Amino acid sequence: MSTYTKRVRYKNHKRHINVGARPGSIIIPDDAEKPQIVVYSFNQDDLQTSKGTNIETITRQIKKCTDHTHWIKINGLGDARLIEDIGTFLGINQLVLEDIVNTHQRPKFDEYEGYVFGTSRVIYFNKEDELINCQFSGIVKDNIVISFEESHKDYFEAVTARLKAGKGIIRTAGPGYIFYSLTDTILDNYFVLLAKIGDMIDQTEDKLYQSPDKSIMFDAQQLKRTLIIIRRSCWPERDKINDMIRSESELITKETKLFLRDAYDHCIQAMDMVESYKEVTSSIIDLYLSMVSNRMNEIMKVLTIISVIFIPLTFIAGIYGMNFSREDANGHVIKDNMPELYVQHGYVYTLIGMFLIGCGLIFIFWKKGWFNKL
Amino acid sequence: MSTYTKRVRYKNHKRHINVGARPGSIIIPDDAEKPQIVVYSFNQDDLQTSKGTNIETITRQIKKCTDHTHWIKINGLGDARLIEDIGTFLGINQLVLEDIVNTHQRPKFDEYEGYVFGTSRVIYFNKEDELINCQFSGIVKDNIVISFEESHKDYFEAVTARLKAGKGIIRTAGPGYIFYSLTDTILDNYFVLLAKIGDMIDQTEDKLYQSPDKSIMFDAQQLKRTLIIIRRSCWPERDKINDMIRSESELITKETKLFLRDAYDHCIQAMDMVESYKEVTSSIIDLYLSMVSNRMNEIMKVLTIISVIFIPLTFIAGIYGMNFSREDANGHVIKDNMPELYVQHGYVYTLIGMFLIGCGLIFIFWKKGWFNKL
Amino acid sequence: MSTYTKRVRYKNHKRHINVGARPGSIIIPDDAEKPQIVVYSFNQDDLQTSKGTNIETITRQIKKCTDHTHWIKINGLGDARLIEDIGTFLGINQLVLEDIVNTHQRPKFDEYEGYVFGTSRVIYFNKEDELINCQFSGIVKDNIVISFEESHKDYFEAVTARLKAGKGIIRTAGPGYIFYSLTDTILDNYFVLLAKIGDMIDQTEDKLYQSPDKSIMFDAQQLKRTLIIIRRSCWPERDKINDMIRSESELITKETKLFLRDAYDHCIQAMDMVESYKEVTSSIIDLYLSMVSNRMNEIMKVLTIISVIFIPLTFIAGIYGMNFSREDANGHVIKDNMPELYVQHGYVYTLIGMFLIGCGLIFIFWKKGWFNKL
Amino acid sequence: MSTYTKRVRYKNHKRHINVGARPGSIIIPDDAEKPQIVVYSFNQDDLQTSKGTNIETITRQIKKCTDHTHWIKINGLGDARLIEDIGTFLGINQLVLEDIVNTHQRPKFDEYEGYVFGTSRVIYFNKEDELINCQFSGIVKDNIVISFEESHKDYFEAVTARLKAGKGIIRTAGPGYIFYSLTDTILDNYFVLLAKIGDMIDQTEDKLYQSPDKSIMFDAQQLKRTLIIIRRSCWPERDKINDMIRSESELITKETKLFLRDAYDHCIQAMDMVESYKEVTSSIIDLYLSMVSNRMNEIMKVLTIISVIFIPLTFIAGIYGMNFSREDANGHVIKDNMPELYVQHGYVYTLIGMFLIGCGLIFIFWKKGWFNKL
Amino acid sequence: MSTYTKRVRYKNHKRHINVGARPGSIIIPDDAEKPQIVVYSFNQDDLQTSKGTNIETITRQIKKCTDHTHWIKINGLGDARLIEDIGTFLGINQLVLEDIVNTHQRPKFDEYEGYVFGTSRVIYFNKEDELINCQFSGIVKDNIVISFEESHKDYFEAVTARLKAGKGIIRTAGPGYIFYSLTDTILDNYFVLLAKIGDMIDQTEDKLYQSPDKSIMFDAQQLKRTLIIIRRSCWPERDKINDMIRSESELITKETKLFLRDAYDHCIQAMDMVESYKEVTSSIIDLYLSMVSNRMNEIMKVLTIISVIFIPLTFIAGIYGMNFSREDANGHVIKDNMPELYVQHGYVYTLIGMFLIGCGLIFIFWKKGWFNKL
Repeated sequence: MSTYTKRVRYKNHKRHINVGARPGSIIIPDDAEKPQIVVYSFNQDDLQTSKGTNIETITRQIKKCTDHTHWIKINGLGDARLIEDIGTFLGINQLVLEDIVNTHQRPKFDEYEGYVFGTSRVIYFNKEDELINCQFSGIVKDNIVISFEESHKDYFEAVTARLKAGKGIIRTAGPGYIFYSLTDTILDNYFVLLAKIGDMIDQTEDKLYQSPDKSIMFDAQQLKRTLIIIRRSCWPERDKINDMIRSESELITKETKLFLRDAYDHCIQAMDMVESYKEVTSSIIDLYLSMVSNRMNEIMKVLTIISVIFIPLTFIAGIYGMNFSREDANGHVIKDNMPELYVQHGYVYTLIGMFLIGCGLIFIFWKKGWFNKL
Repeated sequence: MSTYTKRVRYKNHKRHINVGARPGSIIIPDDAEKPQIVVYSFNQDDLQTSKGTNIETITRQIKKCTDHTHWIKINGLGDARLIEDIGTFLGINQLVLEDIVNTHQRPKFDEYEGYVFGTSRVIYFNKEDELINCQFSGIVKDNIVISFEESHKDYFEAVTARLKAGKGIIRTAGPGYIFYSLTDTILDNYFVLLAKIGDMIDQTEDKLYQSPDKSIMFDAQQLKRTLIIIRRSCWPERDKINDMIRSESELITKETKLFLRDAYDHCIQAMDMVESYKEVTSSIIDLYLSMVSNRMNEIMKVLTIISVIFIPLTFIAGIYGMNFSREDANGHVIKDNMPELYVQHGYVYTLIGMFLIGCGLIFIFWKKGWFNKL
Repeated sequence: MSTYTKRVRYKNHKRHINVGARPGSIIIPDDAEKPQIVVYSFNQDDLQTSKGTNIETITRQIKKCTDHTHWIKINGLGDARLIEDIGTFLGINQLVLEDIVNTHQRPKFDEYEGYVFGTSRVIYFNKEDELINCQFSGIVKDNIVISFEESHKDYFEAVTARLKAGKGIIRTAGPGYIFYSLTDTILDNYFVLLAKIGDMIDQTEDKLYQSPDKSIMFDAQQLKRTLIIIRRSCWPERDKINDMIRSESELITKETKLFLRDAYDHCIQAMDMVESYKEVTSSIIDLYLSMVSNRMNEIMKVLTIISVIFIPLTFIAGIYGMNFSREDANGHVIKDNMPELYVQHGYVYTLIGMFLIGCGLIFIFWKKGWFNKL
Repeated sequence: MSTYTKRVRYKNHKRHINVGARPGSIIIPDDAEKPQIVVYSFNQDDLQTSKGTNIETITRQIKKCTDHTHWIKINGLGDARLIEDIGTFLGINQLVLEDIVNTHQRPKFDEYEGYVFGTSRVIYFNKEDELINCQFSGIVKDNIVISFEESHKDYFEAVTARLKAGKGIIRTAGPGYIFYSLTDTILDNYFVLLAKIGDMIDQTEDKLYQSPDKSIMFDAQQLKRTLIIIRRSCWPERDKINDMIRSESELITKETKLFLRDAYDHCIQAMDMVESYKEVTSSIIDLYLSMVSNRMNEIMKVLTIISVIFIPLTFIAGIYGMNFSREDANGHVIKDNMPELYVQHGYVYTLIGMFLIGCGLIFIFWKKGWFNKL
Repeated sequence: MSTYTKRVRYKNHKRHINVGARPGSIIIPDDAEKPQIVVYSFNQDDLQTSKGTNIETITRQIKKCTDHTHWIKINGLGDARLIEDIGTFLGINQLVLEDIVNTHQRPKFDEYEGYVFGTSRVIYFNKEDELINCQFSGIVKDNIVISFEESHKDYFEAVTARLKAGKGIIRTAGPGYIFYSLTDTILDNYFVLLAKIGDMIDQTEDKLYQSPDKSIMFDAQQLKRTLIIIRRSCWPERDKINDMIRSESELITKETKLFLRDAYDHCIQAMDMVESYKEVTSSIIDLYLSMVSNRMNEIMKVLTIISVIFIPLTFIAGIYGMNFSREDANGHVIKDNMPELYVQHGYVYTLIGMFLIGCGLIFIFWKKGWFNKL
């Protein structure tokens, strides 16, 4: 059985709208997770890690490791104080801090004096098969990259693994490359999601060909909604990557831009797939509806053929079931009251007549092509 | 029960079309509310407020407070004289004045010599749950910002509160920032509206899954119409904000432009939501229509199965209900008139025959897959 | 009752296609109205008017009033000679003259050496409620503006009234301003038309909610067709006005361009309304079709419920209406031929059985949710 | 009767695809017509014509008339040798020659060193009412214009007539003007085609209002297909003319460009008409489908009303047609077996009861609004 | 019978997604075919060929033939070592190598220092009538062109044949021309595919007109899906060729660009055909659905006419089939119990009455236009 027929839930924090509030206000929703900080400080030879929950964790490590690149990984945004401390420590604009905690941003890339800021949408199915659509944001400044994630889920496991392994250029290519790696991981996950959706589409299509039922319509609609969500993230993501490639900031090195071009291609591929899948989903819906229509047609034909054949016959039987009396109230014979009933072979003739009428009607239907396939 | 099934009314002043009228004519509709003027004059330390209904209120205050920024807040446009007086006092073009009172403008931003002019659409549900779509317009000149609203509703409460509190840069950032704050408040309210629409969509979808009825179609259509109205305001609003960002007027300071960029992002987010909601609404309609179609299919199947089984059986009963006589008019026995009726076990055989026919038909339907789910 | 249910006729001269004809040929359709010429010569203080039907009317007046601006208003294009005379007199290109008489041009604005040429579509309902879609064209040269209209209808009454009144800048702003005023009047009339269509949409929607019938579909389709016609004029009109604003010709003064910008805004507003109205019309059609679908559903349910309840009951009645004989042909009792008929309380039991079957079926339908609202 | 209900045939040579063939190969389809050459050599005073089937015809004439412009008109492309000879004689690129014989080009305009090359689609209904979509191509070089047509049909009759008459600038404006004239003739024919389609649409719409039948659907689909074909030619034609206008080649004179601008306007008009016609055709289909839907609705209502009224009545008649015996098998009276049958006025009461039930049901239907118009 | 009614299978390697993997990783899917290498070394006079499976084959040949152009043709990507060796030998970027083995690239053209890289989609039906959509990629560097194909299929037979024949410029125009020839062959195959689809559309349309059945819907959907796949390849292919034309690399010579322009035209033609075919397919679906709808309508009419005529007649027969007794339980005559049954000619009158009712109903239906064609 399709694992998809249950309704997909779109888990999403409600947006807190503070009409007319001072721009740059940092308002934390009540259900935000408490932050966990991990600081990775690394150069080609060395990798130092420290964990904590407040600004001290960060400042201590940065002071300690002077010739390192620092990746400050923050999971959970539930501490307004921490966000503001980081803002003060690095000299980040209030509006940027607001964008970090107000987790409904579209993917975008903004350059500020001395640092750059970018956001992406992280989309995945969690263990309860709810579609999670949360925000990743990152700041690159000097030799520091800070990443903000909404939950404690270890989404960037692959990147930290590569960092620990120390293979490739990840340790040497600077904070911009780390930021690229995170973005690329998010994009890779879009393909994981799209592969899953591709499988669901195949399943739904198989069901359509083998045992169509009305769950197809629900499946198709949910696929559509999921695709709408991915597309809504994918289009601005493309613009964001393009902005990064055309950025003149020194924080995005020429070497990183080469990789970004690759990510750009991936992003367009993902969009291509989303559009194709939407078209295929629509055509599945069309095909299903035409099948419903055909089925109705077929049912109507059976009903009509049987009804139209038997209704006149039953009428004739009704005629000869009438009780017109052979004798009137006074006992005189009434000659023209249903004389057929008293005729030799009357019953047989009637049956033969009925049979001929039935055959005639079948012949008419056959002529009209009702036994054809339409 | 959904609070949305009643028909949304779109309250809107009828446009007064004066074919071929001299451009720049100031024609006040009869139902326009009389203006109420509040002048806020403020600098970092001081905030002076004065109220009134005529040009004197404004001129007196401006003369009095020479090193202040002035926000002249006008609620109600029902006084052509006042509008013209303001125009003369500040040297505003006639066409601009016409745009202020002709409250069907699209959001736009125009630069004139020495001042800038902008309009927005203010959209909200009033207490009677009518969707109000009225106009806000503002002029920024030197140290003055004038805002014009159609009604007496205190729509910009949050901004006046921040002004009175004196926190943040609102008192120091100049009249352009006030104008930005008003625009931003309008945008924030779009999100309030969209959040409400999002809830309505969720409700409608829940209804679809739990107890679908034909109100869904009406709900969906009204959601669609409301979204059309918001989109019609949102798209030009984006262009307007973009024009403000690219404006070279000194009235829009560099600092304000940073905030405008933020507002621009919000505007695109709102548009994104409108488009997604429209798609979701369409897919709700499609799903509902397919459910209607399926329901019909199901009803037809029940009707057809029952009819097709009983129609032949009733015909047979009709046959044996005919009154063909055992004896002709002369009392002679007619042997072949319904001999079945006089046969030992005839009735039992008939019942068994009927039962077999019924079973056969059910078997045929089962073979055809009519008991399947499609 | 809606005044719109009758079919809108689109009165339109048939295009005369002269395949391969020399470009610049002036071919007058047979049904073209004979021209009436009015020449308005005016300066700030003076307004002289003369009427006639040939080129003399024009040349005489122009010679006489040397320091005036001249507006030559020509109603009716049914005189090839006159058109050619005007062309020769003012030195107009043959292709322009062809465009004037070939009244199927899209709105456009072309600059030539020494003069500019523009066309618009004039759209209105005439007294017979036919939708008229005819052409206005105008030439501006030096201190002369010539306007060509297809019919004798006094379409620009408002402009001549303002000219006669002499108020505003109309007498001093030059021939380009007159041309703008005429264009603006045409645009104003689009709003009149759109207001009428808005009313029709409201009426149709009211009908949909109160007493839907199949005229709705016809109404909606006619609204759509009318909107297609307006849109077809409105889009190129916008481009035309934009061309005028960006024109470097001295004939369009900077002052006039300010007004043109206003007209440009109006044009976009009109387009906005057309698009919204089209969407609303589509959604009315969708809603209506879903109502038809629902109605069908409801009818089918009633039919099915009644049929399915009574068909088995009638069958039972048919069974006990059979004439299986208690005695065979030889007068022997046949015990198993319908013994139920001779049983104490048989009839009562049968009725009770029927009643129970009926209740059972109703219960099944209720369980299936057929008495719900879908 | 509509002349359009028969299926339009799209006569089109099959494309010969030679996968991986050397570009520039000249491969003539077997069914290509043999070429007929007419050379028109003309200057202001003189027009000389010669006919033939090989390259000699051309070279001889060109040698003879040295101060003439030459129009070499070739009808039929069935001679690879001739095409190659012309290519050699005038120094034409192989790829151009391939485009001439491979008659599936989109309209385009290419400039080469010393000559320009353009193609158009010639679309018309032939005498068998097949829609012909064939290729016209032309080369302009020095004082020579060569036109290639697929068939012997005299498509450019009007141009040759003007050339013979010698009126206008056709004899003096050079070969580029001839090429323009041919293009313009093709465009004029699009309008002829569109006028015919417009008539067909009117006919179909009349049929829809007066006697709708299912041929409407077929008509509409064929109109749509024809419009798709015209649009496919019209869009690139516009680009082609635009390329010609912006061409810097001396072969397209400034004078010709003025005419080309006119042709450009025509092309956009044609596209406008195609788009409008497509929309109107779609709305005809929608209206027709809604009529089918309404008709079904109406039929269902009649069926349901009649069925639902008579089914219970027939059931009652069935009840009193049952043969429950007054006496049991032993001749004892069974009191409760259908005592109604033996009651004074029983029959009358039954008829009255039936009448009341019928009236009640009609009243219920009337209450439900089934006698309304929906 | 249509060869298309079976379901088209879209054979496609599953994409291997390695979330967060180091960009530039060369991961070979398990089912990749083992590479076969053919090296063609040629100059105007000479053509040397050598085959093998490892890098030696290539290096040896290149060393041997110093004044030749080399085309290294690699079929099968199942050897990571070989790909890396080639990358090292020619100095190719890791990201390019990854794109070669990760066979889900969109068509693209990238320039690198010293070499260019391009990919295309190769689409064809294999012998099992599965639609294969695999990747071709090529690198051009100095006098070397390397082509990578996914399978061993001899797809570029035509190009190798031309190379062996040595006709035309193929041996002299350099490696860029070889790359163009391969691209052009891929494009030619799109036309083969589209011709096949065109035939399928014609077949499906014929079926629609001659013997419509529900396979049409499936056919149309599969055509649509196939067209979606081709379009997805065709659009970026156009961009790719355009990039090649505008490339400033010396590897794409001016001569080759002339041919590329030709290929560009072909690509646009293919896109045109795809779009037209999609529209035609949609209109086939619409027409089919309307035929289903009409058929239903017709069936309903027959059912309704027959039912509505016979239901009242059967009711009347039912009335006179009731057994109301002429005598009450006590043997007294009940005068008003069905006196009709004892009337002279009662039966005849009843039959006449029934006949008149039937005629009346037929007349009503005729009046309502139910015997018309709708």
